[in-house]
Amino acid sequence: MSSDKVLLDYGSGGRASQRLISELFIKHFANPELERLNDAAAFKIDGKISMSTDSFTVDPIFFPGGNIGSLAVHGTVNDVAMLGAIPKYMTCAYIIEEGFPMADLEIIVKSMGESAREAGVAIVTGDTKVVPKGAVDKIFINTTGVGQIVADPMPSGDRAAVGDAVLISGTMGDHGLTILGTRKGLSLESNVMSDCASLNHLLVKLVQEIPDIHVFRDPTRGGLATTLNEITTASNVCCELEESSIPVKPEVVGGCSFLGLDPLYLANEGKFLCILPQKYAEKALEIMRADKLGKDACQVGTITDANPGKVILITPLGGRRLLNMLEGEQLPRIC
Amino acid sequence: MSSDKVLLDYGSGGRASQRLISELFIKHFANPELERLNDAAAFKIDGKISMSTDSFTVDPIFFPGGNIGSLAVHGTVNDVAMLGAIPKYMTCAYIIEEGFPMADLEIIVKSMGESAREAGVAIVTGDTKVVPKGAVDKIFINTTGVGQIVADPMPSGDRAAVGDAVLISGTMGDHGLTILGTRKGLSLESNVMSDCASLNHLLVKLVQEIPDIHVFRDPTRGGLATTLNEITTASNVCCELEESSIPVKPEVVGGCSFLGLDPLYLANEGKFLCILPQKYAEKALEIMRADKLGKDACQVGTITDANPGKVILITPLGGRRLLNMLEGEQLPRIC
Repeated sequence: MSSDKVLLDYGSGGRASQRLISELFIKHFANPELERLNDAAAFKIDGKISMSTDSFTVDPIFFPGGNIGSLAVHGTVNDVAMLGAIPKYMTCAYIIEEGFPMADLEIIVKSMGESAREAGVAIVTGDTKVVPKGAVDKIFINTTGVGQIVADPMPSGDRAAVGDAVLISGTMGDHGLTILGTRKGLSLESNVMSDCASLNHLLVKLVQEIPDIHVFRDPTRGGLATTLNEITTASNVCCELEESSIPVKPEVVGGCSFLGLDPLYLANEGKFLCILPQKYAEKALEIMRADKLGKDACQVGTITDANPGKVILITPLGGRRLLNMLEGEQLPRIC
Repeated sequence: MSSDKVLLDYGSGGRASQRLISELFIKHFANPELERLNDAAAFKIDGKISMSTDSFTVDPIFFPGGNIGSLAVHGTVNDVAMLGAIPKYMTCAYIIEEGFPMADLEIIVKSMGESAREAGVAIVTGDTKVVPKGAVDKIFINTTGVGQIVADPMPSGDRAAVGDAVLISGTMGDHGLTILGTRKGLSLESNVMSDCASLNHLLVKLVQEIPDIHVFRDPTRGGLATTLNEITTASNVCCELEESSIPVKPEVVGGCSFLGLDPLYLANEGKFLCILPQKYAEKALEIMRADKLGKDACQVGTITDANPGKVILITPLGGRRLLNMLEGEQLPRIC
């Protein structure tokens, strides 16, 4: 591009916008539908469709393990996939602050292109708004994805049933602690990295091998505790969690105790919960552990009828404590 | 809601977010898919799908003729419909500044619900981020829509052909002048109002009655001049426009001359271009004029092979002037 800063012109819809589209977006997102440059994209999806949207406002925009661009692709890919779907197409809408460095924008757009290709998703249409300095903090990105639902019956947050096993795909709190650590300048003292990743390939493997998965859900904002509360409320069941079985990296335990945070409330961006009949749990764990994104997978609890709508944490000493939904805001701009 | 301001908590993913969803979004957007509260929505669309996204950053957020919420629905409904599609489902993602008045948010959400119902679109899933004061100016909204393409062949920006008629559905520049006028405090001196409206019902009527519409496009950012340049470039044809036939309201002409603006470059949010074989032009105009959103419809030009890729404005005195794409940024945050 001719300028090393993003100018207001680039969001005008005029000639400068055209240049930004052709020199940056088409370069990194290349696909025939995007290149038609209509205001809408056209495609086919057979059967039932899963659709999800997320706006990403993460601060800082670059962090160990990713950036706002890769996160924006992973986050929406994962939400679409949680209904037992293969994500296919994605839209991408930028709101950029005037003066934002062009080089940073290219890094972000390039990451999005790479993350989308890995996930097997085509970015088919988009939008760019440039707003005057001060109207937005650097850059916010919305992605919206659609995919083909292949699971039948479809996993859903209201399908957890008494007797089900509760599995998680790996360690809790990595993303949340990374963002807060980076913001507070703690990054030098620990090796913790965001877990942000697209989980769709692993989720589809599970759907293909296991006849009936009741719930898939990614414990993002609000963490494992909040996500499980949503599920127990929607399904009107109780979840009994074994505290000692929940994997948390030692450096995350350390960082959390230093900052006064609870890893069970911290966001994850590359992990999922899988709730399914106990008889399928071993098979599911085998599939998960064979994939690098599920190598630390384990069963952390069971669904019971003890306290419908509640999550009970069973401590290592056998104590039972109610694990509530996140009350206040632990961490704004985490994703 | 318990607070009259939007607090950071409301975007936490925790309990306060749940309250915002149930007390505000479900109240105004009510539909069974949204009420399932999964991170993704599930639905079916037969045949080819049209998908479009837009982020809305309009300033001011309330203006004569609409607000950021109604605009966010109309804008995406229109983009989805421009491929000859019936818009069906929409996502909605808010980025809200901490402290934003709850009463204003409710007005915006209510408008979105009403506009979506009028357009026949269901808002099936969404996202809410609340960012600290200063990280965004008041509120930005992304909407992404999908619809069923019913036109066959499908209208597309690269299908304008020599001999085609160029029709527009009404007066140019109303939205752009309204926004700038409101911003500059000129609102008291004129009756100009944004034209923002969902055009999908009228577009579908045209598709059903006319065998082959080559191009539908809404002249939003960059106005009629920029949109026609995009089409002539994509189709490699020339558009010859009769300046005297382009309808512009007297108060828009007045406001533009006062502010030094050209109505042909101003955004419209409730108008469309229809390019089709000349033999169908009369029939199309009849259908358009029978609808209140197309009552001022007229033919403004023809597609020729004179200067491929260019738009030529024929002045009332017979002069021919090249009408370029918008070069700089006339008006940031117009939509």
